[in-house]
Amino acid sequence: MPITPLRTETDALAHNPPSPAPQLWSRVVLSTLTPQVDAGRWPIRRSVGEPVEVVAGFVTDGHDRIKAELVVTAPDGTQSTYPMPLRYNDEYVASFTPDALGIWTYQVRGWLDVFGTWQEQFERRVTGGESNALLASELEEAADVLAGWAKQAKHTELGNKAKRVRNGDRELALSEELREAADAADPRSGLIESHVFPCEVDPELARFAAWYEFFPRSSGEAVDGQPPQHTTLDDAAERLPLIAQRGFDIVYLPPVHPIGEQFRKGKDNSPTATEGEPGSPWAIGGKLEDGTWGGHKSVHPELGGMAAFERFVAKADEVGVKVALDIAFQTSPDHPYVTEHPEWFRARPDGTIRYAENPPKKYQDVYPFDFESKEWPLLWRELRSVFEFWIEKGVTVFRVDNPHTKPYAFWEWCLRTLKADHPELIFLAEAFSRPRVMQTLAKIGFNNSYTYFTWRNTAAEIQEYAIELFDGPMAEYYRPNFWPNTPDIFHEELQHGGRPLHIARYVIAATLSPTYGIYGPPYEHVYTHKGAKEEYLGNEKYEVRAWNWNDPNSLQPLMLRVNTIRKANPALQFGRNVQFLETGNEHLLAYVKHTDDSRVLVVVNLDPHNAQEAWITFDPATIGLPYHFIARDALGGETYHWEGRQHFVRLDPQVLPAHVFVLSPQ
Amino acid sequence: MPITPLRTETDALAHNPPSPAPQLWSRVVLSTLTPQVDAGRWPIRRSVGEPVEVVAGFVTDGHDRIKAELVVTAPDGTQSTYPMPLRYNDEYVASFTPDALGIWTYQVRGWLDVFGTWQEQFERRVTGGESNALLASELEEAADVLAGWAKQAKHTELGNKAKRVRNGDRELALSEELREAADAADPRSGLIESHVFPCEVDPELARFAAWYEFFPRSSGEAVDGQPPQHTTLDDAAERLPLIAQRGFDIVYLPPVHPIGEQFRKGKDNSPTATEGEPGSPWAIGGKLEDGTWGGHKSVHPELGGMAAFERFVAKADEVGVKVALDIAFQTSPDHPYVTEHPEWFRARPDGTIRYAENPPKKYQDVYPFDFESKEWPLLWRELRSVFEFWIEKGVTVFRVDNPHTKPYAFWEWCLRTLKADHPELIFLAEAFSRPRVMQTLAKIGFNNSYTYFTWRNTAAEIQEYAIELFDGPMAEYYRPNFWPNTPDIFHEELQHGGRPLHIARYVIAATLSPTYGIYGPPYEHVYTHKGAKEEYLGNEKYEVRAWNWNDPNSLQPLMLRVNTIRKANPALQFGRNVQFLETGNEHLLAYVKHTDDSRVLVVVNLDPHNAQEAWITFDPATIGLPYHFIARDALGGETYHWEGRQHFVRLDPQVLPAHVFVLSPQ
Repeated sequence: MPITPLRTETDALAHNPPSPAPQLWSRVVLSTLTPQVDAGRWPIRRSVGEPVEVVAGFVTDGHDRIKAELVVTAPDGTQSTYPMPLRYNDEYVASFTPDALGIWTYQVRGWLDVFGTWQEQFERRVTGGESNALLASELEEAADVLAGWAKQAKHTELGNKAKRVRNGDRELALSEELREAADAADPRSGLIESHVFPCEVDPELARFAAWYEFFPRSSGEAVDGQPPQHTTLDDAAERLPLIAQRGFDIVYLPPVHPIGEQFRKGKDNSPTATEGEPGSPWAIGGKLEDGTWGGHKSVHPELGGMAAFERFVAKADEVGVKVALDIAFQTSPDHPYVTEHPEWFRARPDGTIRYAENPPKKYQDVYPFDFESKEWPLLWRELRSVFEFWIEKGVTVFRVDNPHTKPYAFWEWCLRTLKADHPELIFLAEAFSRPRVMQTLAKIGFNNSYTYFTWRNTAAEIQEYAIELFDGPMAEYYRPNFWPNTPDIFHEELQHGGRPLHIARYVIAATLSPTYGIYGPPYEHVYTHKGAKEEYLGNEKYEVRAWNWNDPNSLQPLMLRVNTIRKANPALQFGRNVQFLETGNEHLLAYVKHTDDSRVLVVVNLDPHNAQEAWITFDPATIGLPYHFIARDALGGETYHWEGRQHFVRLDPQVLPAHVFVLSPQ
Repeated sequence: MPITPLRTETDALAHNPPSPAPQLWSRVVLSTLTPQVDAGRWPIRRSVGEPVEVVAGFVTDGHDRIKAELVVTAPDGTQSTYPMPLRYNDEYVASFTPDALGIWTYQVRGWLDVFGTWQEQFERRVTGGESNALLASELEEAADVLAGWAKQAKHTELGNKAKRVRNGDRELALSEELREAADAADPRSGLIESHVFPCEVDPELARFAAWYEFFPRSSGEAVDGQPPQHTTLDDAAERLPLIAQRGFDIVYLPPVHPIGEQFRKGKDNSPTATEGEPGSPWAIGGKLEDGTWGGHKSVHPELGGMAAFERFVAKADEVGVKVALDIAFQTSPDHPYVTEHPEWFRARPDGTIRYAENPPKKYQDVYPFDFESKEWPLLWRELRSVFEFWIEKGVTVFRVDNPHTKPYAFWEWCLRTLKADHPELIFLAEAFSRPRVMQTLAKIGFNNSYTYFTWRNTAAEIQEYAIELFDGPMAEYYRPNFWPNTPDIFHEELQHGGRPLHIARYVIAATLSPTYGIYGPPYEHVYTHKGAKEEYLGNEKYEVRAWNWNDPNSLQPLMLRVNTIRKANPALQFGRNVQFLETGNEHLLAYVKHTDDSRVLVVVNLDPHNAQEAWITFDPATIGLPYHFIARDALGGETYHWEGRQHFVRLDPQVLPAHVFVLSPQ
């Protein structure tokens, strides 16, 4: 930990030859400082209202006391200082709670508590019965020090007190009053300062939100025997009240832009579309109503065009949900960029533009941008302006498609400059890649990240992964968003696990992680099939579907219940407060989450076929509960009077595979 | 991780307005780098011949390959470069093995492997059956790139090869030969460099050594009915052959300086000595043979003076052990510094020098130095010259008494400047203090450190602590020295555990930690008693003792056996290679240590009263052994033919409480 030592040897050097002795030194050393990410290279990530506990490990030689303080600077430049009392083992601790969006900074300072050390020892001298002569000598020394400080700080009152100390006023010497006066004038011998560490403060919605994804073109009601109809954003807007009522906070739409015609994909990713097939929304760039061509700043005519989008956002505002747009930086061959800015793409020697490929696989319907193009500054600014365009339309949440196939430097610049004007923005990184890739995206600015949750199926796997995310170094900067399914991923376990496993994994996603999402329609209708590897068959990415939006047998009532529990219990609104419990049954996952005044115990049966039971062990005292306490299953409805550490649970997947107990004192 | 990006936007800016787009960027990001201590603020600690494995976590966007290299600079400035191949999950790995003492540095570099990426994809294009036209187009592009590189690097051969590639030579395009030529001319697109990280390389003896402590004045043979006689360093030198034969590497002597007379302590720390009592060797400063006064650069007359010390060092050299001196920076009231440099001490208002105290406790026999004295540069240099004085006498190993009561800045400066001239020096920090205090001393230069081993008694405690030391962040810089006893610490468990526990804890210290030591005479004679809290009664710190140096019933034969096993088995010469095994018996501690061709399994019974047994589980394959292997108990003498993973052990403390199995293939 680098230090800024302040003592000089100038005086002493006057009668000493030059030498290799250190010019500057301090008796105080900063040994550790948490939290931090890569020594301050990247910010820690917090949200408005979420406290930051800073722990500084200061040491000095001998038994001297140290005083420490935390200096916090808000985004508007306001500085606040917090004393850092000693907790134990050289840990000096203070917390601050950011109340504004943007980049905060924090720094710690430590110095020798010269008078505090003296006072503590003087008290022991008095109670230990030292001679009056020795005590008088001690008082004289303290008076010398305090008089010097008073003079330097022009602190008349302290000067007067110093005289009384010199005259033998033991009571004053030991008083809190004198310590306060001394602290005010203390020249802070041995003062050292840490680096300045950044803390990015996101909106609360980045930390605590339920996402709901659906395809606006597939928002029609399924009618037996009739093919589904392509719907517009106006039709989709009619689904918003229901989604909001179920407790979702963010409605996420796949790309809404015009879809390319050249090399359009057909049903289930067939390489050629037949007449009338709608194509993939990620093939961005196509014909507009007026016959011109549009791209990332246009809305697909068949969705109703820009006006319908604006009405959709207005409706979302009205019912209280945010709209999340999918930003996919790639084009179809029909995108206007292709003709207007061919220099933004990679060309072959014959001048044709390179389509996406992973040799020998070819994706002729997609053109990737060339971020290293000679014209990269123009390209980068244009891409950033795509976000700016939609921010103008009222969108503050973006799900970014495959960010890891574009340079990290681009995202760092793009997100940093956007957030400088709009600190309320939320960016979800859709990178299902290797750990360091996903971690780097989170460090450079993505304040929501997809995870491997979809592929963690056993209780042991989920527990291990959650500990890595919520209790390891990643917890400082990586904000996981748990998705049991997406249009790209329909895990085989879920395909086989039916309704019980759909419920189980939904409850886990929504209670283990404060931020979660589902690709809604197929999940809530438990649309299952087998044999499609990891994807949905009849995938909405390539065709229009219709659903029974108001089916009372869907999981919608359960989702409402879970979202209601989340909102009523602050314990479920944070990630780092999770504590896993032994169940002794490999099918049962159990964890407690708690804040000062909220405690939730979740037990989930991951076996979709058989009832499972276990004795769950935990000590109510560790979460502030008495020996006798109440466990109300907010999901199942039962209330139990529990006592002590051992609690029996039994979960039948045919009834309900999860308990969400809200715990409270008797 | 900070980067040094190299791409500029100069070209593109020519026709663009100034903007906030990044001026410099690279597609490569260094996400993690190990090993390191506090982001390179302090060196990692290694020894000559001990490999350093550097793992760089480089990421880039997309599927491009990265090339990475490790640049190592030896203390003499010699630079070596090692390629870092990809291991998995973005980890690029290389090792170097320091072969010289002093401060080494290492740095990693990463860049885009442009041609390697092309070649990999081209191979997939060929095997994937792409059209000849497309392949020709690819070859043309590669030829363009290579021709450019060849021109820039004036690499004629590569230029010629580029022509052949352009003409369609697929075999050459895919060849290793072409890749090598391309690598030589590669302009390293996107090159980034890490910080330069320091690595302090200590002598092998800092990593692997057995220490033996005894009081030279107590080196006489015990004779029944006769009081022990104060012996000299010449008498003590006669014990050296025996100590060396037993396999010890370092003989550590408490301070050998003249002992103060004022306020001299008596038997068992009695506040006043009676006539003829020898005093504590840590009360440094007393009368010399010629009636003058001597301090830290003198030898106690009763030990034979400086000449006897020089003969002692010569004898140690002859038998092959190093002498470790105890450096305690404090004085008795009789030290010449007190009269010659009163300004180096703290004075009371009446001008008297402050003795050591922890109010209300007083230690009138000890004067601490004032490291903050106005004359601190002179004091610091004088104290450093104490080391220099003994280095001149041939001493290279120092045990430093209570370093944590002197400023860390002093030690950092003192040890760094001493090692600059004498990189062979070993400094053992005697700080039994809080974790951050001990860690800081190790970071700033102490290359051996005492530990809490003495207070870790159960198998679970020892295992947990060893994992913290050898497998956590401390393993990079903290080199533990395990001592089952010292003149200051005789743990209650050991007082009650008698011979079995003395053996058990000795075996653990010597096999779990490559560096260990014992305060020899009372330990090997299992000198036990009860009721003295944590200290030996009749403590040699305050009185002369005598021992039965050649008692065949002492633990000496066992110590010889253990030290012999240590020297024969490289697995025991390192710390970080330990792996603990489940025993299912709380009294049994079991661990395996292994290197490439050395494997040792240690099982110890910590119950001094009862035989304990267990099935030890471990997979021989994990340490490179076949299913059938030989386990030779190098301590007990038996040889077993074992197979598979489960092995029964039974240890009777009345026979031998430990197995040290040397494992080898059938």
